[in-house]
Amino acid sequence: MTTGGAPTVETIAERAGVSIASVSRVLNGHGGRPDTVTRVERAAAELGYVPNAVARSLKGGRSMQLTFAMQDIGNPVYVSMVREIQAITKAHGYRLLLHSTDAVVEDELAVLRSLADRTSDGLVICPLRITPEHLEALRTAAQPVVVIGSLPEDAPVDSVRADSVTGAEKAVRHLVETGRRRIAFVNGPADTVPGHNRQRGYRRALADCGLGLDPSLVATTDFTIEAGVRAVHELLEADPSVDAVFCANDQLALGAAQALHTRGRRIPEDVAVVGMDDTSLARASWPLLTSVDLGSAERGRIAAEMLLARITERDSSSRAPVRSETVTPRLVVRASSGPVRRGAEEETR
Amino acid sequence: MTTGGAPTVETIAERAGVSIASVSRVLNGHGGRPDTVTRVERAAAELGYVPNAVARSLKGGRSMQLTFAMQDIGNPVYVSMVREIQAITKAHGYRLLLHSTDAVVEDELAVLRSLADRTSDGLVICPLRITPEHLEALRTAAQPVVVIGSLPEDAPVDSVRADSVTGAEKAVRHLVETGRRRIAFVNGPADTVPGHNRQRGYRRALADCGLGLDPSLVATTDFTIEAGVRAVHELLEADPSVDAVFCANDQLALGAAQALHTRGRRIPEDVAVVGMDDTSLARASWPLLTSVDLGSAERGRIAAEMLLARITERDSSSRAPVRSETVTPRLVVRASSGPVRRGAEEETR
Repeated sequence: MTTGGAPTVETIAERAGVSIASVSRVLNGHGGRPDTVTRVERAAAELGYVPNAVARSLKGGRSMQLTFAMQDIGNPVYVSMVREIQAITKAHGYRLLLHSTDAVVEDELAVLRSLADRTSDGLVICPLRITPEHLEALRTAAQPVVVIGSLPEDAPVDSVRADSVTGAEKAVRHLVETGRRRIAFVNGPADTVPGHNRQRGYRRALADCGLGLDPSLVATTDFTIEAGVRAVHELLEADPSVDAVFCANDQLALGAAQALHTRGRRIPEDVAVVGMDDTSLARASWPLLTSVDLGSAERGRIAAEMLLARITERDSSSRAPVRSETVTPRLVVRASSGPVRRGAEEETR
Repeated sequence: MTTGGAPTVETIAERAGVSIASVSRVLNGHGGRPDTVTRVERAAAELGYVPNAVARSLKGGRSMQLTFAMQDIGNPVYVSMVREIQAITKAHGYRLLLHSTDAVVEDELAVLRSLADRTSDGLVICPLRITPEHLEALRTAAQPVVVIGSLPEDAPVDSVRADSVTGAEKAVRHLVETGRRRIAFVNGPADTVPGHNRQRGYRRALADCGLGLDPSLVATTDFTIEAGVRAVHELLEADPSVDAVFCANDQLALGAAQALHTRGRRIPEDVAVVGMDDTSLARASWPLLTSVDLGSAERGRIAAEMLLARITERDSSSRAPVRSETVTPRLVVRASSGPVRRGAEEETR
């Protein structure tokens, strides 16, 4: 192996037994005859040549990679978000790297700090909570960052958020309008932004509709199918009068439906079920699940466009003010929240 | 900004107003007082210091990042695989980068070739097909690669695969044993490795059980819920005698269940449904879905261990022979494939 410093097109050409022009073409991604490409790539690798992302990045250029950090790859709410971000960034010539942070604060911060590595030209991140460390890492980020989620007003980066308070309100109002009165609420952890906001929406809708808040109808658990199953069994053991279950995401709602089926309670005749996020699970469940579309695809699209705008802006001298957008939620009514059938039941009795 | 060459611990210490020892500690990831860390990181960023992955990589060291490239982030079969790979690689100090290639050959090849960037120390990849270009890219890969999937015998890298032929056989035999005779098969594209293997298993089981192959009972479509809904409506329109549907993955099976519910066919009394992959969807569906566990978590675990072994090996002079492992499938019987109830029905008539 050559030890006289970094490999060059000359040393690679010599080792590969091809012309310097061929090496240049291959290394710049313009291809060549298959065997030439192979020989150049092998010689370059053997000589320790560092092409593409890192080399361009070190020259002050770009890696042409962007990063999307989500909390949990197992949550289908991220599927439509990733697809949208990937389609847009790909159309602009970027490759998208994904991180699943398991909502671990240290991992989220590590992703933010790793922007200094310059292997990525920018980041879209969905933090579950915003800690002071997050704000500091956002303020000192080495590359543009866009947050999908709620940020304090004076936060230093662009963000796009769902309006899950209004979304939860819409779900609960819909249940009241279709005749439900004992509306249970299965929430994720209340100390997370999504959990906190859904709880506010639930309370606000009950108050607006003149229904009292019954704490025994509220379960706080994890955002998973299994947690939904357990929570709804417990709610119905404690209070068989429950006639609706509003769930903080579709996974909880699928678990709720499963518990109700197991207990022989008909959906929606006996108990209505409403989920949130309107993921593919809502269209996969039986009966088809009413859910609140919090605009995950749209949030992905807006975040990707915000990020690309910040990257473009770096080549100019002007800086646009920090942007913050909110996507309007939309209730998608399906079979799981049909009206109560008390009349019909009484007729058949 | 300093222009006299690359930033050093000295210039960063000067700018941050802290000691050189503090800078060294922070940049080497050993932390420090929060405000010191912040000042060092900011000064380093402002001076264009390139820490961590790239710098270590350029020094011939490691980026301490590994990559997992899957076909479709929307397919829940990857969830348990990612979780297992991430847990193991994280325990070894690596951060995991994810790619969703949409099963686009060019994107898969680009991920393989990007290993020359040295931003990742190794790759686990799940290609949907193996083309000659894949084999060439595997042969010339700049970093260790492990394939989750089937490879030709003389392929140059370690691999771990599911035995989906046997898995499909087990599913169909189970349906025959529980009294089904008109067993439809909803498959994904037959020119993919999974599609081809599932078809072989279906045919083999029918032949072994002495049942003829009826091509009108076989639907070839995409691996999605929506495709499953459409295919099962069409199959039942054409032939109402169908008494079981074997689906090539859980998403198709959920679509099948939805179509059957919509048509008023009871599961499993009228029509049994079996899926494949045993994802979280199987436990979310109603009735609970019988599915074939193809060991996605185990494949993830084995692939991660194979990759780490190859990375360790690079520091030694010996090379272990290429390894190829196969994970044994396991049928998980749930309510959707209970026995036919012809007897019970006749009694009630």
